[in-house]
Amino acid sequence: MLSAAVRLFNEQGYDATSMFDIAESLGITKSSVYHHISGKEQLLQMAMDRALDGLFEAAEDVRGTGLPAIERLERLIRRSVLVLAERFEFVTVLLRVRGNTEVEQHALTRRREFDTVVTELVKQAQAEGGVRPDVDPATAARLLLGMVNSLTEWYKPRPGGAEAIADAVSSIAFEGLRM
Amino acid sequence: MLSAAVRLFNEQGYDATSMFDIAESLGITKSSVYHHISGKEQLLQMAMDRALDGLFEAAEDVRGTGLPAIERLERLIRRSVLVLAERFEFVTVLLRVRGNTEVEQHALTRRREFDTVVTELVKQAQAEGGVRPDVDPATAARLLLGMVNSLTEWYKPRPGGAEAIADAVSSIAFEGLRM
Repeated sequence: MLSAAVRLFNEQGYDATSMFDIAESLGITKSSVYHHISGKEQLLQMAMDRALDGLFEAAEDVRGTGLPAIERLERLIRRSVLVLAERFEFVTVLLRVRGNTEVEQHALTRRREFDTVVTELVKQAQAEGGVRPDVDPATAARLLLGMVNSLTEWYKPRPGGAEAIADAVSSIAFEGLRM
Repeated sequence: MLSAAVRLFNEQGYDATSMFDIAESLGITKSSVYHHISGKEQLLQMAMDRALDGLFEAAEDVRGTGLPAIERLERLIRRSVLVLAERFEFVTVLLRVRGNTEVEQHALTRRREFDTVVTELVKQAQAEGGVRPDVDPATAARLLLGMVNSLTEWYKPRPGGAEAIADAVSSIAFEGLRM
């Protein structure tokens, strides 16, 4: 049911999707849908949590490695690409949310927390001499995540595709395009 | 009138904005608005053209420099940041469009043409030995533009801000974050 709802949210927009549309796409009645969930907002929250939990698990795993900050940063950016590819429809829902309701506000707050995790990693990596000192950490974090998040606009799932893109993001962002 | 319409499109969504809303925000009647334009779709087209024309002018200027492809690529990416900052509301409209109408389809086609310009520059720069050969040109172009386009999500206009971000984009994308 969550997948069906998320597909509709992404195709026609969250606001334009009714509980009737969700029931219809599953070939069941609206009252059957309400038997399982309280309303479409609950489905939105579940979808956004699926995306955010993936990102925060990645941050947690990376934190536990004890590697230098530059390596943790690079791993977190790579993992973010993989989370985005694996949970593509959920992340797409998350990134389109504008904060119109409490549930959306909560998701935006968690997104900002994740931005802060990345910003702190950039700062730490600069302090350790791993990242060039002339880039503002918050700007770097936003640009890194901007690159990753752009996948929702153009990524087409195929075997090995996510790993190849993670490699490309990592090459460009950490080594630079210039020879 | 275009600015007023674009502000509403970005605040409440294009679909949710009526000609009445546009007239009301200007303190004039709906028939006065129709005196100047055929409908909100014309305003959408004008807004998207404002954004796209800026990008294509930048591509044209860069093409005329006769510099090596890597330098043209870097200048085009920098200029794209400046166009986005200067025409922020217009680019934001452009990037939210999903291709639901002919006007939107046309804008998406021009966006893809711009992606192709960037992809071709990456290819040429690789052929000249200016860009690392292990990155797929189309993927590199999408990631570069993903970084630039992410500004619509977080950029706050302030004096010198756009130049500082253009520098950051250029440092990260061409030199890499790693020391």
